[in-house]
Amino acid sequence: MNYSIIFYIIGWILNLEAAFMLPSCLVALIYQESSGWSLVAAVLLCLLIGLPLVIRKPKNRVFYLREGFATTALCWIVLSCVGALPFVLSGYIPNPVDALFETVSGFTTTGASILTDVEALPHCLLFWRSFTHWIGGMGVLVFLLTLIPLAGGSHMNLMKAESPGPSVTRLVPKVKSTAKILYMIYMVLTIIEIFLLLFGGMPLFDSITLSLGTAGTGGFGIKNDSIASYSTYCQVIITIFMILFGINFNAYFLILIRKFRQAWESEEVRAYLLIIAAATLAITFNVRGYFSSFAQAFQQTIFQVASIITTTGYATTNFDLWPEFSRTILVLLMFVGACAGSTGGGIKVSRILIMLKTVKKELIQLLHPRSVRRIQIDGKAIEHEVVRSTNVYMAVYIFIFAFSMLLIALNNFDLITNFSAVAATLNNIGPGLSLVGPSGNFSMFSDFSKLVLIFDMLAGRLELFPLLLLFVPNTWKRF
Amino acid sequence: MNYSIIFYIIGWILNLEAAFMLPSCLVALIYQESSGWSLVAAVLLCLLIGLPLVIRKPKNRVFYLREGFATTALCWIVLSCVGALPFVLSGYIPNPVDALFETVSGFTTTGASILTDVEALPHCLLFWRSFTHWIGGMGVLVFLLTLIPLAGGSHMNLMKAESPGPSVTRLVPKVKSTAKILYMIYMVLTIIEIFLLLFGGMPLFDSITLSLGTAGTGGFGIKNDSIASYSTYCQVIITIFMILFGINFNAYFLILIRKFRQAWESEEVRAYLLIIAAATLAITFNVRGYFSSFAQAFQQTIFQVASIITTTGYATTNFDLWPEFSRTILVLLMFVGACAGSTGGGIKVSRILIMLKTVKKELIQLLHPRSVRRIQIDGKAIEHEVVRSTNVYMAVYIFIFAFSMLLIALNNFDLITNFSAVAATLNNIGPGLSLVGPSGNFSMFSDFSKLVLIFDMLAGRLELFPLLLLFVPNTWKRF
Repeated sequence: MNYSIIFYIIGWILNLEAAFMLPSCLVALIYQESSGWSLVAAVLLCLLIGLPLVIRKPKNRVFYLREGFATTALCWIVLSCVGALPFVLSGYIPNPVDALFETVSGFTTTGASILTDVEALPHCLLFWRSFTHWIGGMGVLVFLLTLIPLAGGSHMNLMKAESPGPSVTRLVPKVKSTAKILYMIYMVLTIIEIFLLLFGGMPLFDSITLSLGTAGTGGFGIKNDSIASYSTYCQVIITIFMILFGINFNAYFLILIRKFRQAWESEEVRAYLLIIAAATLAITFNVRGYFSSFAQAFQQTIFQVASIITTTGYATTNFDLWPEFSRTILVLLMFVGACAGSTGGGIKVSRILIMLKTVKKELIQLLHPRSVRRIQIDGKAIEHEVVRSTNVYMAVYIFIFAFSMLLIALNNFDLITNFSAVAATLNNIGPGLSLVGPSGNFSMFSDFSKLVLIFDMLAGRLELFPLLLLFVPNTWKRF
Repeated sequence: MNYSIIFYIIGWILNLEAAFMLPSCLVALIYQESSGWSLVAAVLLCLLIGLPLVIRKPKNRVFYLREGFATTALCWIVLSCVGALPFVLSGYIPNPVDALFETVSGFTTTGASILTDVEALPHCLLFWRSFTHWIGGMGVLVFLLTLIPLAGGSHMNLMKAESPGPSVTRLVPKVKSTAKILYMIYMVLTIIEIFLLLFGGMPLFDSITLSLGTAGTGGFGIKNDSIASYSTYCQVIITIFMILFGINFNAYFLILIRKFRQAWESEEVRAYLLIIAAATLAITFNVRGYFSSFAQAFQQTIFQVASIITTTGYATTNFDLWPEFSRTILVLLMFVGACAGSTGGGIKVSRILIMLKTVKKELIQLLHPRSVRRIQIDGKAIEHEVVRSTNVYMAVYIFIFAFSMLLIALNNFDLITNFSAVAATLNNIGPGLSLVGPSGNFSMFSDFSKLVLIFDMLAGRLELFPLLLLFVPNTWKRF
């Protein structure tokens, strides 16, 4: 393991975090909030540790995938620990484990909260919470790649470790330019949403924070009832943007370079939209009796469906009270997740597609033993490597899920709470069912359980392996 | 598809079923029960259809894996439909879907019941119920292979389709002899259990039926409280034999040919025993307050653990009332299942081992990208084919599970009932949690849901693919 470059990158991440905290400081200044000082203190601490680490560039430029994975995992942990400081220092979340939970939930775009009264937080901390979603959504290392020049292999290996989905596509030959394009699309879409919400009469602060939360598919609201109290217009806008941010960003790039046909023919995007449509229809019919009109049932349903499948986690109604058929669909959607290459979490539609096609191929092979065919997506044969990594991903996913459920069960809450708490964190959604449903929160878990769920959130966001690698003793050997 | 040979084999299966029903007829004669006539009627029907089908041997001897899979699936369906007749004809289970559920539950060694009062059944039907477990446990086609000579490829392809586990080992070069050895071990172990139970003062009828249920890892009891009312000695004997029947039968063969060391060194058997030990310890500590002594807690715990992991499904206590930690362990054990090559169901310990080793290999490869190593079990490298089929199995498993849960949810029972009903049937266990817990049963489900669960039981017993293949239109083409 090449430690010098890892520390160098961690240093940059800390400096970057300092910069990321500045807008929140500005919010504190505008609203004249004394909690702003806790943010300033965190900024200073970031720079105090970060600046010395980046003074000289490391000579050893060796940077393999293992360095990429370890760096990514460590960066996210450091980022979260420092990001939790303002909550602790300001006294709003005095328990460090709670503050860490909230921050990890923010950066991993989970949106699960231990707060029982969100509205009690000052504006600057609410803004910081929502901003962590935006940073975490596209990835902090991807952001770093747009800024600093690193050694050859490092770009792709960091991108691989931080980007969601079974494979990473470079939009353009240079990773740095790819990262810039991704962030550009991300920012433009966010700004459009802010304007559309403002247009609907939503206050500026709410528009910005909720848009940051939508963009990162995070889900932290700034009201205790999440999005329920906003107008139907605003809810519809948020629905549309949740769905948009769950789409593979490659599609937007293809649209940018005017390859409309190719964008439209993406199998993953089509499957994603199809799943949303089918789930919305099925649930709407199932819950129509719960609402005053069919249209209202439809609007409420598509909001929750979009919120769950994109792993955002905003809520406008307590779907935990819906009939079992609808709840089951939502539980299944929790696992499906959004498209690869989006800001959403979950298993990802592309992995589901690969698995479905593997099964289909197997059945055909049983019927025609001598047929040799490879799995295709978008007309291109999928590398064996991607299929294999999808299978390994599923295996790790199942093991982490089972092990987490076992550890969480020590709390002796009901099985649905435990199951959906793990599902909601490992898939980076936010709310689950029962005690952790839309009207509940994660505050009643023991500190130990919270640490398990923190692990799950990070594992889910970083696609399991980077975090798992930290627990392999061999990782820490100097090679 | 070679239809002539499929019908020929189905004919044999029907004749075999007629023979299998004779012991139950004898029981009716002994106890002077009029329901015996329903069994006689079923025997006659079997022969009426079966005999004409086997009069002449098919000329077309083509028999590939697809024929093996389709034959196996069809045989099991025919077997179950005819096997359900005595229940319907005797009027004890008038609804044909219920009768089919009960019979499929028997043959697939699930042990899930729609009966609210088992004790109301006459002895001959109780015996038939338990006997279906014994037939289904080792496999009816495997039995057929010991009797009739078939075309070259057919033996192995039928064995592959019916035997549980990711790969089939021939104990001796000839499949026919392998099948004979397996059934011999099976029978001897069953008889030993009967004698040991008799020795403990259990009535002969109870000893035989419960031993048949243990051997097949089925779980149908003949009392409403399952095994709870029997003496501790009998419970301990049943515990030991449940564990024994969950072990890969290869191990017994190795012992038979005096390769003790090799038998003891089987990784799968060791992992299986280790899981039982760990789960028993953890649960015993967790539930010790529920029992009068630690010893009693241990005895009760190991019974339920053995019953669940071997997918037998006998119960001596209502574990649905245990604390969440223990319930979660039991739920996880439901999925683990027994060893491959045993009579138990579930995912199988060997598949879990293969998945764990795949993950380990992946982590090592991340650290040492140039290392090339293959997964080994028992010191032998596992064929790529087996790893691949394990992955596909998991994918199909997940899809069937999710789809079943969705269909079952239409009943609007609670999520835990639905989840554990699917888990208990797809893994061929029997009881689940909540409404389908040890003190409940499956009678409240709609006929549609029962059909879904019947599919799950068959899919679980036949390791998913044979049954899935029936739904692929191409299967029915004449090649």
